[in-house]
Amino acid sequence: MNLYMNLAELLGARIEQGLYRPGERLPSVRALSLEHGVSLSTVQQAYRQLEEAGLVSPRPKSGYFVAEHLSMPALPAISRPAQRPVDISQWEQVLELVRANPRPDVIQLGRGMPDIESPTLKPLLRSLAQLSRRLDMPGLYYDNIHGNLGLREQIARLALDSGCTLAAGDLVVTTGCHEALSTSIRAVCEPGDIVAVDSPSFHGAMQTLKGFGMKALEIPTDPVTGISLEALELALEQWPIKLIQITPNCNNPLGYIMPEARKKALLTLAQRYDVAIIEDDVYGDLAYTYPRPRTLKSFDEDGRVLLCSSFSKTLAPGLRVGWVAPGRYLERVLHMKYISTGSTACQPQLAIADFIAQGHYQPHLRRVRAQYQRARDQMSDWVTRYFPPGTRASRPQGGFMLWVELPERFDTLRLNRALLEQGVQIAVGSIFSASGKYRHCLRMNFAARATPQIEAAVRKVGETACRLLAQDDNGG
Amino acid sequence: MNLYMNLAELLGARIEQGLYRPGERLPSVRALSLEHGVSLSTVQQAYRQLEEAGLVSPRPKSGYFVAEHLSMPALPAISRPAQRPVDISQWEQVLELVRANPRPDVIQLGRGMPDIESPTLKPLLRSLAQLSRRLDMPGLYYDNIHGNLGLREQIARLALDSGCTLAAGDLVVTTGCHEALSTSIRAVCEPGDIVAVDSPSFHGAMQTLKGFGMKALEIPTDPVTGISLEALELALEQWPIKLIQITPNCNNPLGYIMPEARKKALLTLAQRYDVAIIEDDVYGDLAYTYPRPRTLKSFDEDGRVLLCSSFSKTLAPGLRVGWVAPGRYLERVLHMKYISTGSTACQPQLAIADFIAQGHYQPHLRRVRAQYQRARDQMSDWVTRYFPPGTRASRPQGGFMLWVELPERFDTLRLNRALLEQGVQIAVGSIFSASGKYRHCLRMNFAARATPQIEAAVRKVGETACRLLAQDDNGG
Ligand SMILES: Cc1ncc(COP(=O)(O)O)c(C=O)c1O
Ligand SMILES: Cc1ncc(COP(=O)(O)O)c(C=O)c1O
Repeated sequence: MNLYMNLAELLGARIEQGLYRPGERLPSVRALSLEHGVSLSTVQQAYRQLEEAGLVSPRPKSGYFVAEHLSMPALPAISRPAQRPVDISQWEQVLELVRANPRPDVIQLGRGMPDIESPTLKPLLRSLAQLSRRLDMPGLYYDNIHGNLGLREQIARLALDSGCTLAAGDLVVTTGCHEALSTSIRAVCEPGDIVAVDSPSFHGAMQTLKGFGMKALEIPTDPVTGISLEALELALEQWPIKLIQITPNCNNPLGYIMPEARKKALLTLAQRYDVAIIEDDVYGDLAYTYPRPRTLKSFDEDGRVLLCSSFSKTLAPGLRVGWVAPGRYLERVLHMKYISTGSTACQPQLAIADFIAQGHYQPHLRRVRAQYQRARDQMSDWVTRYFPPGTRASRPQGGFMLWVELPERFDTLRLNRALLEQGVQIAVGSIFSASGKYRHCLRMNFAARATPQIEAAVRKVGETACRLLAQDDNGG
Repeated sequence: MNLYMNLAELLGARIEQGLYRPGERLPSVRALSLEHGVSLSTVQQAYRQLEEAGLVSPRPKSGYFVAEHLSMPALPAISRPAQRPVDISQWEQVLELVRANPRPDVIQLGRGMPDIESPTLKPLLRSLAQLSRRLDMPGLYYDNIHGNLGLREQIARLALDSGCTLAAGDLVVTTGCHEALSTSIRAVCEPGDIVAVDSPSFHGAMQTLKGFGMKALEIPTDPVTGISLEALELALEQWPIKLIQITPNCNNPLGYIMPEARKKALLTLAQRYDVAIIEDDVYGDLAYTYPRPRTLKSFDEDGRVLLCSSFSKTLAPGLRVGWVAPGRYLERVLHMKYISTGSTACQPQLAIADFIAQGHYQPHLRRVRAQYQRARDQMSDWVTRYFPPGTRASRPQGGFMLWVELPERFDTLRLNRALLEQGVQIAVGSIFSASGKYRHCLRMNFAARATPQIEAAVRKVGETACRLLAQDDNGG
C-alpha cells in the first residue's frame, strides 16, 4: 500500500471512531508530515483522498475540517425475539427475493449485490479471459475436493489481516459462502438440534437450518455491539444448544462490528458450554476502519470456530467462490462438500488467485470501502429526509446494507408490493427472523454509486411508507 | 446433422446391435444409396467415417466389412448384494480418490474425467474468453436461483433427443450433477428413509445418502439390462422404500443401457408402490447408438421422476454446470438448491448456452462418442491380453468406463496400493457398494486417446494383478 493511502486510512479510522468530531479542524499538513515522517505532498494526497471520500472538506486558508455529517436517523432498539427454539418459516418471502431476475425497469435495493462496476475489478476479468486462452485448459478439469491450492494459499495470506494464522490445508474452497455455511451446519448438527442465532440474522443461514430440520433460538442483539452475551448465556443455561451461528463483523443486516472484548467473551462462553461457532465473515473485509476487525476464529484455541466467507461481497457473487476454515470439523465438512457439489468451478478460483497474487485485492477493497462508507452517509441522510418521522436506521461500520425500522404497526410486505409497481424492490424485515418478526423493518442496499435514480428510488420507498402509514391512521 | 453423418450413425447402430456380425460383408455403396435416397459419395463418406471409427474395414474390390472385433472378456455375473437396507460406509476410500491431485507422474485411470482435449471443445473456450471481455460483465452477477434462462432453454431443447418434453421452467441449474443428486435426494427423503439403488452404483450418490442419514438397499443388477425388476419388486413389497436412485443410461460403472421395455416396467412399479425415482442421466448423451436412449423421465406421467444430469461428462467437469428436472418436487428442490449454494457460477452457464446455441454440441458429441466406442474396444482387448485368465469385464454401450471383475478372492485395494508406486491409479470396486462389496472389482477410465503410455498403464494393472494373485496362490 502507498504511504498516502496508509495515512488516509489511518485518519479515516480516527474520524470514524469519533476522535475528530464533525466540523472540527484536523491537524495541519505540516503537523502530520512531522508526526508520520512523510513528505508534505504525501499528506496532501491523503487529505485529497479523504476529501473525495466525503470525510473531510478543505476551507480556504484554514486547512482541513471533518465533514459536517449528513443527518442520521436514530438507531434501532435492541431486538427482543422470543426466547425459545422455533421452526423456521419465511421461505416463500425469501424465494420471492432470490427468484427475482435483474430487470432494467426495477431498482433492486433488496439484493446483496456489491458494486461490480469498480474499475479495480478489471484485472479480474482480464485473468478470466486469459485463463480461457490457455492451451492447458486449467478451467476444465475436476478440481481437487479441497479447492485450488494456489487460491487457498492466497486466502490464508489474507486471513492474516484478521489476526488468523491459517495454512492452505486448513481451508476448503466452497461454492459461495452459502455452501460454506450449509456444509458447516451439517458438519456440526443433526436434525432437531437447537442453534442459537443473532437476530435479525441472514436469511440464507436460517433457511439452511430450516432445510436440515434444525431449530433456531433467536438471541436479542444490540444494533451496535451485536448479540447479547447475557441473553446468550441464559439460553445456553436453559437449552441444549449445539451451535452458535453468528455474523460478528459488518453484520448483515445490522452492519455493526462486535467489539473485540465481546468477541473474546463469546468464545469463552462457547468453551464453557462446549458449543461450536459458525462465524460468517462474508462482509468482514469491507469494514470501513483500518485495520479490518479480527475474527472470532483468530481467538479460537481449540478449533471450535468454523469460519465461513466468500468473495461474493468483496469481488463479485457470480463467481461463486467461498471458503470455510472448519477447525476440528475439517473431515466432516469435506464429506458434506463432496456430497453437495463435489468440487467448485475452476476458472473463477484460478482468476481470483491471480487477482490476489498480483496485488489487486487491497487496492480494490480500499476503493469500494471508501465508496460504501460515503454511500452509507448518503443513504442515512435520505432516510431522515424521506422516511416517516420516527424511522430508525442502523449505522453500519462496514458493508453496504442499511437496516430501517418503521413504526411498530407497519407492514413492509405490503410496502414491497406497493413499491414493485413503482419499479423499486426492498428486502422485507420478516425474512431476517426465524419466526417472521421484524415485519416493520426493511433492508436497503447502498452499494451502487449514489445517482439521482437511486435517490428517487429511496425517496419512493420513504414516501410510499408515509402514504401507507397515513392510510392506516385514517383507518384505511 | 449432415446426411453422411446420419447414415454413419445408423450403420454404426446396426453394427453395435449385432445386425451385422464381425467379419460380415456390409451392403454395397450402391445398395445403400438406393435404400436411403442419398448420393454414392454420401455413402462413401459415411463408410469412411465408420472406418475411421474402427467399426468397418474396406477390402480391395469387395467392399466394406464389419471390423473383426478385438478380443473381449466375458461379462461379469449379475450382482448379488445383501437384501436389506444398510448404512453406507466407504467414505475413506472415496476421499482418497477425490482428494488426489492430477499429477504428471500418475496416470489416473480411476477418475471420471472425459477427454477435454477434443478440438470440438475449442468454441467453448472461445465463448468463455469473450464473456470475460463483455463490458456488461454478465459473469459477475448473482444468478437467478433457477439458473440462467438461456441455458435452461437450450437444455430443454436437448432433452427432446431423449424423448422428454420440458420447458425452461421445469429445470433448475445446479453446480454439477452432484448438486442435482443431493438436492433431489433431500427433496424426497428424510434421514432414516430407505433408498433402493442399482448395484454397483455411483459412489457420489451413495455418499449423499450416507451424509443425509438414509439407508441404501442394493438391488441385484444385470450387467446388460440393469437393475433386476424382480428383485426390486420383492424389495418394494418388503420394505418401506421412499425412493429409487438409478443410472439407467450408460450406467456408471457398468455401462449398460436399460432396455426401453424395462424402463417402462420400472416406472409402472414405481407408480404401483408410489415411490419417487431419481434418474441420473449424466452419461446418457454419450450412448454409442443413435438416436440416444430415452430417459425414464420421458415416460413419466405424474412427475415422480427427478432427472439429474450435467455437462461434466459430455463437455468438461471443471465448469460445474448440471441440472435437475424435479417434476412434482420442484419447489422442494429450489429450497435445497438455495441452501446448498444459493446459485451456480454464471460464466460457465453462459458459455455453455452459447456453445449449444451455436450448434457446437452435437458435432462434439459425435466425435467423442465415436472415440469412446473405439477406446472401449481397445481397452477390452488390453484386458483380455494383460489381465489374469478368468477376468470378466463390462461391455459399455456408452460413456468411458470399464468395469473389471477379478477372481472372487482378489483385493483391489491392495492392487491400487501396489499400483500407485508405479504411477497408475484405478478406482477400487468397494466404493461402488454401500457396504463395501466388489472388493475384487475395479473401474478404469478409457476417455483418453489410446496412447502407448495408456497401454503401458493398463498392462501394469493387469500384470500387477497377475503377480498378486500368484503370490496369494503361493500362500504369500
Ligand atoms: C451474511 C451473509 N452470509 C452469506 C451470504 C452468501 O454469500 P454467497 O453469495 O457467497 O453464497 C450472504 C449473501 O447474501 C450474506 O449476506
Ligand atoms: C453417474 C454419475 N453421476 C454423477 C456424477 C457427478 O457429476 P458432476 O461432476 O457433474 O457433479 C458422476 C461423476 O463422477 C457420475 O459418474
